Amino acid sequence: MSGSTIGKMFCVTTWGESHGPALGAVIDGCPAGIELDEEFVQRLLNKRKPGQSRYSTQRGEADKVEILSGVFEGKTTGTPIAMMVRNTDQRSHDYSQIMDVYRPGHADYTFDMKYGFRDYRGGGRSSGRETIGRVMGGAVAMKLLEQLGIRVTAFTESVGPVKGQTYDEAEIERNPFRMADAQAAASAAEYVSAAAARGDSCGGVVKCVVKGAPAGLGDPVFDKLDADLAKAMMSIGAVKGVEIGAGFSASELTGTQDNDGFFSQDGQIGKRTNNAGGILGGISDGSDIVIRVAFKPTPSVSALQQTVTKEGENTEISIHGRHDPLIVARAVPVVEAMAAITICDALLRGMSSRMDNVSKIWSK
Amino acid sequence: MSGSTIGKMFCVTTWGESHGPALGAVIDGCPAGIELDEEFVQRLLNKRKPGQSRYSTQRGEADKVEILSGVFEGKTTGTPIAMMVRNTDQRSHDYSQIMDVYRPGHADYTFDMKYGFRDYRGGGRSSGRETIGRVMGGAVAMKLLEQLGIRVTAFTESVGPVKGQTYDEAEIERNPFRMADAQAAASAAEYVSAAAARGDSCGGVVKCVVKGAPAGLGDPVFDKLDADLAKAMMSIGAVKGVEIGAGFSASELTGTQDNDGFFSQDGQIGKRTNNAGGILGGISDGSDIVIRVAFKPTPSVSALQQTVTKEGENTEISIHGRHDPLIVARAVPVVEAMAAITICDALLRGMSSRMDNVSKIWSK
Amino acid sequence: MSGSTIGKMFCVTTWGESHGPALGAVIDGCPAGIELDEEFVQRLLNKRKPGQSRYSTQRGEADKVEILSGVFEGKTTGTPIAMMVRNTDQRSHDYSQIMDVYRPGHADYTFDMKYGFRDYRGGGRSSGRETIGRVMGGAVAMKLLEQLGIRVTAFTESVGPVKGQTYDEAEIERNPFRMADAQAAASAAEYVSAAAARGDSCGGVVKCVVKGAPAGLGDPVFDKLDADLAKAMMSIGAVKGVEIGAGFSASELTGTQDNDGFFSQDGQIGKRTNNAGGILGGISDGSDIVIRVAFKPTPSVSALQQTVTKEGENTEISIHGRHDPLIVARAVPVVEAMAAITICDALLRGMSSRMDNVSKIWSK
Amino acid sequence: MSGSTIGKMFCVTTWGESHGPALGAVIDGCPAGIELDEEFVQRLLNKRKPGQSRYSTQRGEADKVEILSGVFEGKTTGTPIAMMVRNTDQRSHDYSQIMDVYRPGHADYTFDMKYGFRDYRGGGRSSGRETIGRVMGGAVAMKLLEQLGIRVTAFTESVGPVKGQTYDEAEIERNPFRMADAQAAASAAEYVSAAAARGDSCGGVVKCVVKGAPAGLGDPVFDKLDADLAKAMMSIGAVKGVEIGAGFSASELTGTQDNDGFFSQDGQIGKRTNNAGGILGGISDGSDIVIRVAFKPTPSVSALQQTVTKEGENTEISIHGRHDPLIVARAVPVVEAMAAITICDALLRGMSSRMDNVSKIWSK
Repeated sequence: MSGSTIGKMFCVTTWGESHGPALGAVIDGCPAGIELDEEFVQRLLNKRKPGQSRYSTQRGEADKVEILSGVFEGKTTGTPIAMMVRNTDQRSHDYSQIMDVYRPGHADYTFDMKYGFRDYRGGGRSSGRETIGRVMGGAVAMKLLEQLGIRVTAFTESVGPVKGQTYDEAEIERNPFRMADAQAAASAAEYVSAAAARGDSCGGVVKCVVKGAPAGLGDPVFDKLDADLAKAMMSIGAVKGVEIGAGFSASELTGTQDNDGFFSQDGQIGKRTNNAGGILGGISDGSDIVIRVAFKPTPSVSALQQTVTKEGENTEISIHGRHDPLIVARAVPVVEAMAAITICDALLRGMSSRMDNVSKIWSK
Repeated sequence: MSGSTIGKMFCVTTWGESHGPALGAVIDGCPAGIELDEEFVQRLLNKRKPGQSRYSTQRGEADKVEILSGVFEGKTTGTPIAMMVRNTDQRSHDYSQIMDVYRPGHADYTFDMKYGFRDYRGGGRSSGRETIGRVMGGAVAMKLLEQLGIRVTAFTESVGPVKGQTYDEAEIERNPFRMADAQAAASAAEYVSAAAARGDSCGGVVKCVVKGAPAGLGDPVFDKLDADLAKAMMSIGAVKGVEIGAGFSASELTGTQDNDGFFSQDGQIGKRTNNAGGILGGISDGSDIVIRVAFKPTPSVSALQQTVTKEGENTEISIHGRHDPLIVARAVPVVEAMAAITICDALLRGMSSRMDNVSKIWSK
Repeated sequence: MSGSTIGKMFCVTTWGESHGPALGAVIDGCPAGIELDEEFVQRLLNKRKPGQSRYSTQRGEADKVEILSGVFEGKTTGTPIAMMVRNTDQRSHDYSQIMDVYRPGHADYTFDMKYGFRDYRGGGRSSGRETIGRVMGGAVAMKLLEQLGIRVTAFTESVGPVKGQTYDEAEIERNPFRMADAQAAASAAEYVSAAAARGDSCGGVVKCVVKGAPAGLGDPVFDKLDADLAKAMMSIGAVKGVEIGAGFSASELTGTQDNDGFFSQDGQIGKRTNNAGGILGGISDGSDIVIRVAFKPTPSVSALQQTVTKEGENTEISIHGRHDPLIVARAVPVVEAMAAITICDALLRGMSSRMDNVSKIWSK
Repeated sequence: MSGSTIGKMFCVTTWGESHGPALGAVIDGCPAGIELDEEFVQRLLNKRKPGQSRYSTQRGEADKVEILSGVFEGKTTGTPIAMMVRNTDQRSHDYSQIMDVYRPGHADYTFDMKYGFRDYRGGGRSSGRETIGRVMGGAVAMKLLEQLGIRVTAFTESVGPVKGQTYDEAEIERNPFRMADAQAAASAAEYVSAAAARGDSCGGVVKCVVKGAPAGLGDPVFDKLDADLAKAMMSIGAVKGVEIGAGFSASELTGTQDNDGFFSQDGQIGKRTNNAGGILGGISDGSDIVIRVAFKPTPSVSALQQTVTKEGENTEISIHGRHDPLIVARAVPVVEAMAAITICDALLRGMSSRMDNVSKIWSK
């Protein structure tokens, strides 16, 4: 399959460019009979929408979703669900600068190397607007997960060097950074404002927790659940690192420190700790699935940078326009979407792991 | 596709269990006309073989490879390459302990949850021996990369808290940890010996660098080159984290610090720094591709651990047998193999990114 | 991958229902740099449009295409091409009859068995309107083939028992049946009219020829070129049989009769005959690729038929509405589209069959 | 995925050449808990083995199967099942003739065009021995189908122009042609003997019936059950045509003739006829699934044929050696295998078509 589809049974294909007519997604392989409406998808899209705070781009997109197929009388039909958002605020720009110059940290140069030319308007396909399709796919996935009591929650764990210390879920939607720690959010505001004032930008870390996933998801070798999550997360623009559970810090522990002992209580098997982040041998163990995702700072900065033109001449660039000094907060719903899609795909693929489950569906 | 195949055009399917008759791989999609012989594959398999040093398991496997198809008169034919290694040292064990008890940090519990039962002999499919098939696939991939001047090198960057400070490639194969810093290797020896003496085990970080890869590899959205690398690495047993370039530390930089400025010299475009780790917008930029992979400590420890039986009774376990106190050194060739497979797949998939390339192959 | 995508490198995903808001396709994996505009796609869509003659449904759809992504300044960018057609003539119907009754020959019953319920309006996803997405995908494929001098032509070989005897390509678009034989078309007109007058319907055979395809397309075992063509054709609604070259009649020949002898002339290798239909061992041989596709009669007939209700009660049905007494003529562009998509995918997948071709693209 | 794998959830990858060391298959995605042993696979392999009668090649291969992984204590474990057969009777031949000359009707020329060279020993990968892997995969599939009461039976319907008129299942294994009509088998013996005496060869048609498959298998658009069956069948060497149900003859019927009326009896819905061959809109309807597969005559004939050398010189060839004058009888178990694999894959993929089925597996 080509590179714009993710998932093997629950498949999300996205399309669209920043300044083209529209962006959208096709979700194929969604089981029939799940309630779905535009309002729910819209609510999630609004979480990634531009212009939510003064820390994000002021581009004025409504990002109004339209469901074009696959839903009948409020329920998924089992056939492909197509959704679309029209671009409305593609300002007519003078693109002459970025048309010919490679912006550092952006995909301008690599697109030209791969395709021979590029849609230079607002990043084209490599724009953050590409994540609209991911959120659409995630919305459908979440509706499925909801019916199985599985819940995905992400939040900003750190903004640059400012790390959240406490966790208050209610706080997440109260501050513009989607941090779970109000005090850290206040520090983050200072940090980001200072960077923005200098024409600079910031990165951060998003943490995502999946609660209620059953044990047994994922395959033992290449399609490990953590491998698929790593791919899903690393496929989000600007992500440079992914950790499961204790992550890199596990490499400094010893086996006796890192191993999560099992215990049994009231007929249920549990783990005393969760360094594994809910995944053992690539298969979910029933504990919370814990993922950390590192985002680099937004590459668009107005500070002067050295670069080259398409023709290979050294030059300088200062990027102006409607850019986010911090992308992390708007990435939170995207991380949730990618986690939901991955878990959903693992659920559908995992249905046939045992013959007794196959018989449960097909025996007469 | 089911979970034991990786790659879309260059496809590696692995099979086999720790204590079954054999393990192997099928490599499909390899172009015709590449020189390949058993000796080359054997050399790479020997790098991951048990018993190389006193820090790895003393299981006495020859791991002698046999090429069963897809090679004719010393060259790949374009049809599937099957390879196999017979298991020879499956000691007859008393498995009664691990048969009924879930080892902490292992996949025993999750296999039972997924499949209803498991091949408990030596971990079955979740054994480290599963990586034999990866190395086989990687061997073929490396032969292809070699012809394009692409070279993959990995080494152990840190063992537990002991980090290498210097880089001497010649040193890597000289010490049992595959560190590139002799002095750090000496400290690692002390650290690992102490842990082993306590019946404990250690983790570490492997760094992998791909040199000579052309710009233009990888797809812009889901099949980003870094996303595929993240999946490939996270699919190796015991891996808990993956970074590309500056990785998690990028999240603490500002845009002006993190962005790699382009420059032009002698008609070549280059980058002043490589925080991106050679990948921009999911597509290779022609710089070194830099990946860091975190391994948790070997979960098999002889120290006493609390756990449960299959029937859900609390119990204790002390794991004896031929286990590696440190898996990281033997994982180095596996990391190289996964990188080679991923780059190889991206090369084959990327051939049709432009119509002029399509015409180059098919025009009469 | 889920069932609404075809192709491995050149991937076409279709979506949409007969009476939903819209239908469309996403074409992913198309090389960058191919000229594409809405006018060309529209021309092909018009060939499958309803209402072209009195032998097809009088539903008044404009089927006006909109390209939503993947094209920039008149050329494909290498990123997904999304296209859409809005449904405009979804008459408000009284669906009470087909809502509860299974139409013989239709997918009503099987959709209910698979999904638990169905979008009963006009067949939903199983409507002939689903082929709009196929034609969109085929349009892009044809643009690619055009650049390589490959041409796909299909025509109606027979309508019911009326077989064309002569071949005049210019005739195909002159008669409402797309037959290449004017006289046969006249007989077909009588045959179809008589059936329609009785409230009955007709089937037929479409023949498709691909000229100019290079030798070497297709893979030797499962992904044989003829296997992929067979799947592509059989996936069109109402198709019940597919032949390559001599097809079923080859089974009655002897080896000396069926084998196509090779000859050499002016340094070119050719075949004296083409019973193979241009494919040997699953790989194209450079001759014309010849495919025959059998369509069953349109299942919607106004004559009274015996059937059952959803609740399992025996009943009768007479289907009225805007139905084609003959679908074959409108299927001709769909057959062409499916052939073009399949050949296109084989071309892109086949680029890496030899290492020297890989080097041609990637060597510095 | 590359071309040697079939199936999306139940995946069969085959490998091996006629005169290489071995041939085999990897079956991935098979549910855990199915009984499987070498004896059952061997029984099926024996049905396709050479030397069963004087109408097939006298190559003396034992084709002894070894299961190398994925089975533990007599049951599938859910991990990949690898099987292998060693080649033992690769006579040392003088290959100089076929090394340089393209045999008409064979894949010699097309392999050279695709790969630049070929393993010319006994056809290499394009040999009929390639079907060993198919039968291995089919064996596993049949074990799964057996548990659901699904049975696949194929037989030779016609040999050249000699058509079976009656159906006696017990007769199939009694005559060397696997015909279900003893009298037709006697006529076939005369026909084939006469052709063989002339140094010529014959083709035929295999009919395959799947009984007991539930309604609801297959997807509505590209992955229709009949489309996947068509691909599976056309991927067998020497197949030139595939029909479902009434097949090509449906194109000559009218709608009222072809439509299968539904009826209800004792709470069960059935069809009065089965022109559809058990598939409506690409989805199984619970009736027998009926497939017809046309095989061309064996291309290896000892009669003199005109052809060319690799260097493009006109020449003649007379093919001697151990060839089947009729391949059809030995193809019967291969057709069964491909049908079983396809149905099995559709069963596993179809488990998630409805949310209530998903909940049946995953709800706590």
